[in-house]
Amino acid sequence: MGHILHVQGVWSFLFKMLLLTVTAMPDSSSSSANPLWGGRFAAAAAPLLQQINASINVDKRLYHEDIDASRAHAAMLAEQGIISRDDNNAIQQGLETIRGEITAGKMAFTPDLEDIHMHIEVRLKQLIGDAAGRLHTGRSRNDQVVTDFRLWLRRTITEVQNDITSLAQALLLAAAPHVETILPGYTHLQPAQPVTFAHHLLAYEAMLRRDYGRLSDCAVRLNECPLGAAALAGTTYPLNRASVAKALGFDRPTANSLDSVSSRDFALEFLAAAAILGTHLSRLAEELVLWTSPAFGFVRLSDAYTTGSSIMPNKKNPDAAELVRAKTPGLLAAFSHLAGILKGLPLAYSKDLQDDKKIVFEAVDTLHLSLRVMAGMIADMTVNVAAMRTACGKGHLLATEVADWCVQTMNMPFRDAHHLAASLVNKAEALGLDLADLSLDVLHTVDPRLNEHLKSVLTLEAAVARRAVPGGTAPIRVREALAQATQWWDQTTPLFS
Amino acid sequence: MGHILHVQGVWSFLFKMLLLTVTAMPDSSSSSANPLWGGRFAAAAAPLLQQINASINVDKRLYHEDIDASRAHAAMLAEQGIISRDDNNAIQQGLETIRGEITAGKMAFTPDLEDIHMHIEVRLKQLIGDAAGRLHTGRSRNDQVVTDFRLWLRRTITEVQNDITSLAQALLLAAAPHVETILPGYTHLQPAQPVTFAHHLLAYEAMLRRDYGRLSDCAVRLNECPLGAAALAGTTYPLNRASVAKALGFDRPTANSLDSVSSRDFALEFLAAAAILGTHLSRLAEELVLWTSPAFGFVRLSDAYTTGSSIMPNKKNPDAAELVRAKTPGLLAAFSHLAGILKGLPLAYSKDLQDDKKIVFEAVDTLHLSLRVMAGMIADMTVNVAAMRTACGKGHLLATEVADWCVQTMNMPFRDAHHLAASLVNKAEALGLDLADLSLDVLHTVDPRLNEHLKSVLTLEAAVARRAVPGGTAPIRVREALAQATQWWDQTTPLFS
Amino acid sequence: MGHILHVQGVWSFLFKMLLLTVTAMPDSSSSSANPLWGGRFAAAAAPLLQQINASINVDKRLYHEDIDASRAHAAMLAEQGIISRDDNNAIQQGLETIRGEITAGKMAFTPDLEDIHMHIEVRLKQLIGDAAGRLHTGRSRNDQVVTDFRLWLRRTITEVQNDITSLAQALLLAAAPHVETILPGYTHLQPAQPVTFAHHLLAYEAMLRRDYGRLSDCAVRLNECPLGAAALAGTTYPLNRASVAKALGFDRPTANSLDSVSSRDFALEFLAAAAILGTHLSRLAEELVLWTSPAFGFVRLSDAYTTGSSIMPNKKNPDAAELVRAKTPGLLAAFSHLAGILKGLPLAYSKDLQDDKKIVFEAVDTLHLSLRVMAGMIADMTVNVAAMRTACGKGHLLATEVADWCVQTMNMPFRDAHHLAASLVNKAEALGLDLADLSLDVLHTVDPRLNEHLKSVLTLEAAVARRAVPGGTAPIRVREALAQATQWWDQTTPLFS
Amino acid sequence: MGHILHVQGVWSFLFKMLLLTVTAMPDSSSSSANPLWGGRFAAAAAPLLQQINASINVDKRLYHEDIDASRAHAAMLAEQGIISRDDNNAIQQGLETIRGEITAGKMAFTPDLEDIHMHIEVRLKQLIGDAAGRLHTGRSRNDQVVTDFRLWLRRTITEVQNDITSLAQALLLAAAPHVETILPGYTHLQPAQPVTFAHHLLAYEAMLRRDYGRLSDCAVRLNECPLGAAALAGTTYPLNRASVAKALGFDRPTANSLDSVSSRDFALEFLAAAAILGTHLSRLAEELVLWTSPAFGFVRLSDAYTTGSSIMPNKKNPDAAELVRAKTPGLLAAFSHLAGILKGLPLAYSKDLQDDKKIVFEAVDTLHLSLRVMAGMIADMTVNVAAMRTACGKGHLLATEVADWCVQTMNMPFRDAHHLAASLVNKAEALGLDLADLSLDVLHTVDPRLNEHLKSVLTLEAAVARRAVPGGTAPIRVREALAQATQWWDQTTPLFS
Repeated sequence: MGHILHVQGVWSFLFKMLLLTVTAMPDSSSSSANPLWGGRFAAAAAPLLQQINASINVDKRLYHEDIDASRAHAAMLAEQGIISRDDNNAIQQGLETIRGEITAGKMAFTPDLEDIHMHIEVRLKQLIGDAAGRLHTGRSRNDQVVTDFRLWLRRTITEVQNDITSLAQALLLAAAPHVETILPGYTHLQPAQPVTFAHHLLAYEAMLRRDYGRLSDCAVRLNECPLGAAALAGTTYPLNRASVAKALGFDRPTANSLDSVSSRDFALEFLAAAAILGTHLSRLAEELVLWTSPAFGFVRLSDAYTTGSSIMPNKKNPDAAELVRAKTPGLLAAFSHLAGILKGLPLAYSKDLQDDKKIVFEAVDTLHLSLRVMAGMIADMTVNVAAMRTACGKGHLLATEVADWCVQTMNMPFRDAHHLAASLVNKAEALGLDLADLSLDVLHTVDPRLNEHLKSVLTLEAAVARRAVPGGTAPIRVREALAQATQWWDQTTPLFS
Repeated sequence: MGHILHVQGVWSFLFKMLLLTVTAMPDSSSSSANPLWGGRFAAAAAPLLQQINASINVDKRLYHEDIDASRAHAAMLAEQGIISRDDNNAIQQGLETIRGEITAGKMAFTPDLEDIHMHIEVRLKQLIGDAAGRLHTGRSRNDQVVTDFRLWLRRTITEVQNDITSLAQALLLAAAPHVETILPGYTHLQPAQPVTFAHHLLAYEAMLRRDYGRLSDCAVRLNECPLGAAALAGTTYPLNRASVAKALGFDRPTANSLDSVSSRDFALEFLAAAAILGTHLSRLAEELVLWTSPAFGFVRLSDAYTTGSSIMPNKKNPDAAELVRAKTPGLLAAFSHLAGILKGLPLAYSKDLQDDKKIVFEAVDTLHLSLRVMAGMIADMTVNVAAMRTACGKGHLLATEVADWCVQTMNMPFRDAHHLAASLVNKAEALGLDLADLSLDVLHTVDPRLNEHLKSVLTLEAAVARRAVPGGTAPIRVREALAQATQWWDQTTPLFS
Repeated sequence: MGHILHVQGVWSFLFKMLLLTVTAMPDSSSSSANPLWGGRFAAAAAPLLQQINASINVDKRLYHEDIDASRAHAAMLAEQGIISRDDNNAIQQGLETIRGEITAGKMAFTPDLEDIHMHIEVRLKQLIGDAAGRLHTGRSRNDQVVTDFRLWLRRTITEVQNDITSLAQALLLAAAPHVETILPGYTHLQPAQPVTFAHHLLAYEAMLRRDYGRLSDCAVRLNECPLGAAALAGTTYPLNRASVAKALGFDRPTANSLDSVSSRDFALEFLAAAAILGTHLSRLAEELVLWTSPAFGFVRLSDAYTTGSSIMPNKKNPDAAELVRAKTPGLLAAFSHLAGILKGLPLAYSKDLQDDKKIVFEAVDTLHLSLRVMAGMIADMTVNVAAMRTACGKGHLLATEVADWCVQTMNMPFRDAHHLAASLVNKAEALGLDLADLSLDVLHTVDPRLNEHLKSVLTLEAAVARRAVPGGTAPIRVREALAQATQWWDQTTPLFS
Repeated sequence: MGHILHVQGVWSFLFKMLLLTVTAMPDSSSSSANPLWGGRFAAAAAPLLQQINASINVDKRLYHEDIDASRAHAAMLAEQGIISRDDNNAIQQGLETIRGEITAGKMAFTPDLEDIHMHIEVRLKQLIGDAAGRLHTGRSRNDQVVTDFRLWLRRTITEVQNDITSLAQALLLAAAPHVETILPGYTHLQPAQPVTFAHHLLAYEAMLRRDYGRLSDCAVRLNECPLGAAALAGTTYPLNRASVAKALGFDRPTANSLDSVSSRDFALEFLAAAAILGTHLSRLAEELVLWTSPAFGFVRLSDAYTTGSSIMPNKKNPDAAELVRAKTPGLLAAFSHLAGILKGLPLAYSKDLQDDKKIVFEAVDTLHLSLRVMAGMIADMTVNVAAMRTACGKGHLLATEVADWCVQTMNMPFRDAHHLAASLVNKAEALGLDLADLSLDVLHTVDPRLNEHLKSVLTLEAAVARRAVPGGTAPIRVREALAQATQWWDQTTPLFS
């Protein structure tokens, strides 16, 4: 009796399922079997399966790489005598025709044909007939797709690196006129010591250089060719894996077929580098938001990089900076997303891996846009030197100078000098004065050895000039750093083109 | 001298920036000022700004809600005498015309008009002239967009809850014939004790019930109307916030204008509920992957929910289950993404918040698809009762029965009984026998009190039947649970429609 | 030949493994079998297994709950006649003795005894002998640990809610004197419209109220008793699950045994609520960092909540605010961590679940500390009313007043009024004047209808007073909101105590 | 009136705050000023501030690095004539004394002294008096702590790399006897094609090699010395940054002082590498969980790496594998946590950065333990060759052989051959036979050209042997791979020691 469910519930459920099926894909007139793997299948895929399974909307972006890899594969098959020269010629020409069609927007993509590989192969068969069926000899979609993906990512890394270079050069251009422009250096957003604006911008150049390096490392590590791994175990055809790898610009074939089709650490490594780069962009974006706020007023963005309010006529908002700042969590989420997919998957290929491309594609789009918008804002900004100078009047930026002077002139231990300087700061604050404006009388209430010489060193210019240790904020050092950085970015080019 | 940068670098940079600007938006002929906020702006937005700033591709999905909210707002403005009846009538009709146009696909969306609000307002001006300019009285895009978003999410929660109900009912339908079907219950993927298949499926029904509840809580908490918060501080017009709230089905207006435009915890709460639901779906998906593997063979999916291989003719792969399993990290990433955006943002509205909708929309699409595909698979699966039975032959599932028998019959402390049973398992393993097949002689080497009665209880049926505590796996309990669950899902409907 | 590995490598590896084993646990003299489950095991656990497996350092924190649950279980066993009254009495007294010992720091915890359950049971056996062995009748560590955890979390939620209340009350106390204190309301960190400081603080109070509600919902949903689920399938003993549940303050027993031991959505829901609360705390912390920066100067923290620099004598840094801000990503990571563990786990209990407690415990500690530190800072801060007023001089905060005046006085459409006001802002900016200081002559170059009355409304006081819509920033509204909030927090108490 | 809060609420709040303060640190008798930065501070830190601010419980782990860096700094100060030889000698000896004291457990750590730097400096003053006060000349805790951290991480990477080597060697040892052991290769957890077990294990070796490389890249990139950056701007003392860097084994000083104290991408890069490595470990752990399940039965773990159940006497659970699997989300969470902290922080140092060490330390502990436990399990496992062979009987693993034979013998296009093979699989399934057991009659119903030769190639041995392409599963290839891998791991050593 317990078997008999409440009838209303059952029927309402069945009705809903029917509805789902129908609404999921109203135009599913096509129930023909899958052209690649339909041999064993009596019934067509459920529309819902097709909806979750088809990746064509995402992976169509790989068509160049898919065609390049197929051409290299076919050429090698012919060289090895696995297919005929004629078949190879037909394949080569057919694939180029298809490339032209896709580029021209003439290919109609459809979820029926799952992915870019199937679209191209099915079209190839229409164009050249049976020879198309020989192209897939000795390979599987498992090694094919990861080959395409590596090719695409290798090229993409080059593009991202070029964007990084543009941003770095924008920073250098922005820094050049401001080697002697002084603003408060902050720690904890409290004024700490004066720094030069060029020095501040060069801090980001230094971060970008490491970001660039991480991407190079990633490109080198991923540059192995999976073709020949086939589904998972390698292939029985006498492929020349080394020649295909070389033809596609890979350093070598991958070493293990199971690993080749199952691993995506190359994509994870890229996403990690992207997320780390994202943290740098978001920090610079945060500074732009702060600097353009009237509270700081250090920088003005032009109308080209600000937006207004639908209600408040007074607003010019640094939307672009805020949006760049908001992108970091997305890059981070991309890494977490893919790593979460991979966690705990047994070998070899599982369908879970399919989402790798969507995740990486979106991250790349985010990265390109963020880098370019940031370069645009940096190139666009107007620096308000006077506002920076005015801000130096708050927070007793020169207190460390007092302590250092005591150490260097009076041979005090630094700890004692620190306490003496702190006392002076307290006195200055109580009197509402700058440290430099304290009278000798007041100085002497703290220590009789404090003298006019101390007062003479208490200028912002002196303070930055004295920080002339390599890597310091002194203009003399910053000029060297700027020259060195300019040369580095001019001479450095991506490893792959 | 240090000011003079390497010339090549400078020019190469400037050239690249130019290129970026041009390629970013080749058709940017439109340099006219923004119709909503262009008053103060002398120059047009940079193409790159527009590219990162425009949200129309995402938020066009809110057009119903935007029109609903605008209609309610205009009606209230008229009632309060803030705009005239005629203006209101024109606005009401104009908005419905626009709704029809968008639904019919006749509105051309363009990044020039940033977002759905501007598209509708600009179109309204074309349709009804100056009256359109009065619609935005007493509101800002800041309160407008979050009102739209809450309306949309409230409706979406109802849809997701309906999908959950469908899946729960699919589980109940699948469970009903298997109240007495026995399979190994696993812990650590090691056979533990026999359970009934219906009981196993009902575990997921229990999870779904809590998921449903979390969504209800979220819907109740978000159901407050932000309209009237305006940009951030409230408005100077004598709006009747309560009446707008009521007209839109909200429980009340929000209590604080700054909070209204700055907070997105309602979206976070939804994403958290989605991610938690995702973990449940991924666990069930994992079981389907295991169960359909020949290693278990408990379940078969039809051709409608499996796919083949481009190289291996033997394959029928549970792609749909794998893809559902792969979705959880995406839902999780969505939560992390939005929380990461919100972290550390000062009040009030910042542009960072703009990505909230893209994140939630994608999560909702994922959720709908995953729930429906899962319901489809559950409805589609064929249960292999024999394979489940066979699997019960491994792993000495009845060892706990021995221990319990010793406690209940011989009044042994459980710990001692556990040791005794473990000894029997070792003996059985050494002899390659099932526990039930050990001879009395062998039993007596362990304890002379073990007898035929013990052997009589060592059946799978007895083992499940004896677990008749409420919530236990005994068929008598599972039948009750099934009936109760069926009734619950039939009688429960989403709070909002 | 290929079988023969390079000998050096082999030996170096074996040597390292040996070393690992030894260094992993130098004092592993104990190789005796596990007292709970050692029956089938011939050899002791590897030190490395023990190191990764033992959870006692974490779960000892559950000792109160473990003892409470054991007492309730034993009492029920006795009531049901499953164990004798005498055994029950011995167990009850023994457990209280152990509670006292642990509280007094007299229990020596050791990884040999894995977890808190085993520590207590082994000690109980020492104290009361064989009766201890009957305590575990009809339960498993799988249902035991999750019962403990739910009890602990229920109590913890109450504590967190009390901390939230304290913070909310600190905000209310801080707000009370500042109902009429005006500061710039910011959007995009650009001055937008004037708001009152009390209104700004009340925005956070509104967020906290929802956070409180999420925790209540979580507590209600988790308040079901898993005891009786046993290992996974329910138990064969005639337990009275309802009475144990009631004795422990649970609303009811859980409905499905497999779900009971396998699910952790209650912990996920808590962590999600914690992470969302964390975003609110981090936003307030960010504001404190901004406000205490001299760039804003709105607030001063005393020496009690600031720290200095080891090198810069001038510094008073808002470390506590920064640290609270830094905690959000940790709460978020906690949610991701546990959700990542659960993703794709088949039923029933898997050892992966063990880390649930460590994650939640750390999140709770973070939460308590962050809430209390934040309450401390809010109670400690000194508000600089003058600095807030001064900041209102920048950014043309009254521009919206101009637009609204045009709408209300001249019946302009809002869009046109917005453009007119923007023109005035541009003129004021060009002249270096405030809007209120523009001469009538200048006003008339924009529109001849602008007059002295407009100028009379252009005051900060008028601007905030006019935003008197419910939820708006007008003092009259804020006073009501403050009174309502004070009453709400005074009258609201956690659901469980 | 509105100003007057409900009195009860106020007092209850104040009382709670008092309570919090007291309970937070009952023994806070010490209210003396901070010895490093207390100069400006009139009042002591609040106990709650101290509780959230003190890092000593975490960073005491850096004491070796802190002492090493201080010694190098002092020696350089003496060489540069900034401090005297005598002071330097006293400092050198004092620091070694302190190192000994800490190693011997004689230092009492206290939150009063915030961090390891302060503990050591305060103790140094006790030991050597005023000279201790000169050690901090020209440096700040900001550059000091990041120097310590880089030193520690560089050393840790070496240790992790050694652990990776041990695991790789364990895999090679486990693989060596199984070059010809055949098991089903799975895709989608469905049998795909036969592979050899050594080949399967070598897939993980390949992943580990890349993990090793990522860590090397990270170590190289982080190996720059921040000392001399001081608080943020560089120092005014004539430090020789190059000589300190060299003395500490760094490749060079960092290039920008602001970047030096503000950036943590080196830690993020390490955590990313750790998380990626974690995904590999979790996949292998998942396989161990599957393989040790009776459903597969491919592998048995000894008692040393399994645990039992408190209730089920039959259980031997692969807890260690599950726990390793559960660690990946934690490593991932660590990356997200730190990246989340860094997101949007302005330069230079903010206190938010303090949690970097806790996050990395925990990740490192997790990594060490996971790698060692995994190596232990791999070394411990017993392979069940027969069970692997038996599993090959399911799923028609040889179907690809049929297709390949048709291509190679009959010159069929692969796509047609795939369809033909699929038909045979369907026939075999209908007849309940293996492909190899189909009669010629049956074969001829599909294609008359199918013959005895085809049947002769349908063996598992032939199938694996024919996959002899480089990287393929053929024993001849696997032997080569094993030899190459053995040599690689024997010859590769970490870059830093």
